[in-house]
Amino acid sequence: MQIARLSDQALELRHDGASPIVFPFLWLRDNCPTAFDPQTKERNFDLLSVPDDLKPASAETCDDELVITWPDGHVSRFEQSWLLAHQPGVPRPDAAALPRKIWRAADMPELPRFSGAEILADDRVLLDFLVTTQSLGLSLVDGLAPGQGLDVAQRIGFLRETNFGKVFDVVSKPDPNNLAYTAQALALHTDLANQEIPPGFQFLHCIANEAQGGGSVFADSFAIAEDLRETDPGAFRVLSTVALPFRFHDRAYDIRLRRPVITLRPDGRLDEIRYNAHLTDLIDLPADQLGTFYRAYRAFMKRTRDPAFVIALRLRGGEMVVFDNRRTLHGREAFNPATGFRHLQGCYVDRGEFESRIRVLDRRHDGASL
Amino acid sequence: MQIARLSDQALELRHDGASPIVFPFLWLRDNCPTAFDPQTKERNFDLLSVPDDLKPASAETCDDELVITWPDGHVSRFEQSWLLAHQPGVPRPDAAALPRKIWRAADMPELPRFSGAEILADDRVLLDFLVTTQSLGLSLVDGLAPGQGLDVAQRIGFLRETNFGKVFDVVSKPDPNNLAYTAQALALHTDLANQEIPPGFQFLHCIANEAQGGGSVFADSFAIAEDLRETDPGAFRVLSTVALPFRFHDRAYDIRLRRPVITLRPDGRLDEIRYNAHLTDLIDLPADQLGTFYRAYRAFMKRTRDPAFVIALRLRGGEMVVFDNRRTLHGREAFNPATGFRHLQGCYVDRGEFESRIRVLDRRHDGASL
Repeated sequence: MQIARLSDQALELRHDGASPIVFPFLWLRDNCPTAFDPQTKERNFDLLSVPDDLKPASAETCDDELVITWPDGHVSRFEQSWLLAHQPGVPRPDAAALPRKIWRAADMPELPRFSGAEILADDRVLLDFLVTTQSLGLSLVDGLAPGQGLDVAQRIGFLRETNFGKVFDVVSKPDPNNLAYTAQALALHTDLANQEIPPGFQFLHCIANEAQGGGSVFADSFAIAEDLRETDPGAFRVLSTVALPFRFHDRAYDIRLRRPVITLRPDGRLDEIRYNAHLTDLIDLPADQLGTFYRAYRAFMKRTRDPAFVIALRLRGGEMVVFDNRRTLHGREAFNPATGFRHLQGCYVDRGEFESRIRVLDRRHDGASL
Repeated sequence: MQIARLSDQALELRHDGASPIVFPFLWLRDNCPTAFDPQTKERNFDLLSVPDDLKPASAETCDDELVITWPDGHVSRFEQSWLLAHQPGVPRPDAAALPRKIWRAADMPELPRFSGAEILADDRVLLDFLVTTQSLGLSLVDGLAPGQGLDVAQRIGFLRETNFGKVFDVVSKPDPNNLAYTAQALALHTDLANQEIPPGFQFLHCIANEAQGGGSVFADSFAIAEDLRETDPGAFRVLSTVALPFRFHDRAYDIRLRRPVITLRPDGRLDEIRYNAHLTDLIDLPADQLGTFYRAYRAFMKRTRDPAFVIALRLRGGEMVVFDNRRTLHGREAFNPATGFRHLQGCYVDRGEFESRIRVLDRRHDGASL
């Protein structure tokens, strides 16, 4: 490793005959190993303590180290391997940045199935379960006694609280404040589309499912959205730009948000889907936009009824479905509460904690090093 | 109110000689009063149960009512007052959609001050406190016994849990996982910029502040961002488009996110600021973007040190600052733990619950009607 050039703003390093790697001086100072607190690992360097036109007093390579002395006397030492791994333009590797496997019904003859006991006992099974659930957006855990569904969720992280509590019991109730708490059918939907961030991963543990009816349905809304993007780009554009008003309100709450059905990442990839007719408020778009909107919205809706996208299954006591609530649509058939008891227990863990658990479980050699 | 015209897709109503109001047929059917569950108030009508080209079998006005009979026999009745209030293009009034009052130091010689006892006892004071805190992004509550800061927060909604728990105690600790838990100075920042949604409103209740040092500083980052937008639009554009890597990691967590410092709403207004050098990971932008980035970032940073924007105060035991953590920057001077005890107790309530409480307290006449 040699210094190839010192320009006004940057140092260029050459390694193994490859093209020089550019390291701006401000970057080197701001990311000096001493710029981070040794205990908390947080950056503790004040970037304004150096001038805009910061330049080294001296810079040299020595063995496998770059040593820079700054005008204020501070010395920064960078190991070659660190510089190569963290050079500008190279993002930190991320075990949780998993490619999403988009699926249609034919790709999912059965849900990937995991043993609850193994997830609870073995970190490697937990990691495998998390990676699968993150990639496909849907999996099934079995062999769970009542309460153990929550144990699985809490193996990952703390539970996301909402206005329905930390844990919710999906049973037919008197005086329901949500259609989930009736015996009615629920068309495919994502939960809590009215929240700034709808809950990330949902855990629905079937304690009992003895009533007539009450089967479950799922679909990958990303498959539906990608189909729309390809076959009906106008509808895709409307649904990814026109914000709908979502609202939940009862005696205690009135939570509202305006967002499109389809949210894209800056690079155009799908980030999340908000699809919940129950929580869609009166559509207040101007009348001259409603024709275009309804055409696009119905094009999406029709695909949520298309057997090419929808899978159906019947949960049994002890089974739990786990799914990305911001991607995987879920629904149920109506059931007859007079014919038997149906009880699902649900909770959520958000994407942040879910992905964090993948990263922490994936730490092997490099530990928590910066 | 008379029917002025029936087109292929819409009905036009004329009222009091004004221009006709257009009500598309699909909108009328989808928002028929019977389309909402009477108990949960959620939409329970299936939009795909009617055809794309839905048209009424008959439509008439009768007294102050529009009565439509649909081809399947369903009859929709709309009151004139409801149609005028909810016509397409007219958003639902929102008591929580408050204009933000952007402030500089000169606008804030003192924080708006509320009595903790009154907030806890009186809904009208609570609403006044919420509206002020929402508008300015910062207020002060006094007269609080230990624990009562949490009571105030929970008058608004449930607490937002994070990897630091639901309640955090800002004291100098051994083996800290966060610089807040040291005696070091903390430059102005927003908390948890590494979270997909950083916590909304922060409640920092001063239980004791007897050490030398430990004063508090605040600034309205929206004032800083608007100043940048006006005086240095290039820097504003960089900070609102270039996503930075944020990261917190300790033994239990590794939570990451990539976002710009400035997030705008679709209409260009400011939505939130993420500004936390401590949680900014190694800057991994390509080298040829770093010059532009550092110039813009330092322009923002310099304004966070400018007395025109920054206010300083010293919290006393029993006082609590409440601020919009996604807008109001907070920081502290270093303190000397050998000279006395300093203990702040903190918690968060997210924007969704905060705004919901404003709406629920504001319900007077119209209640929860649709």
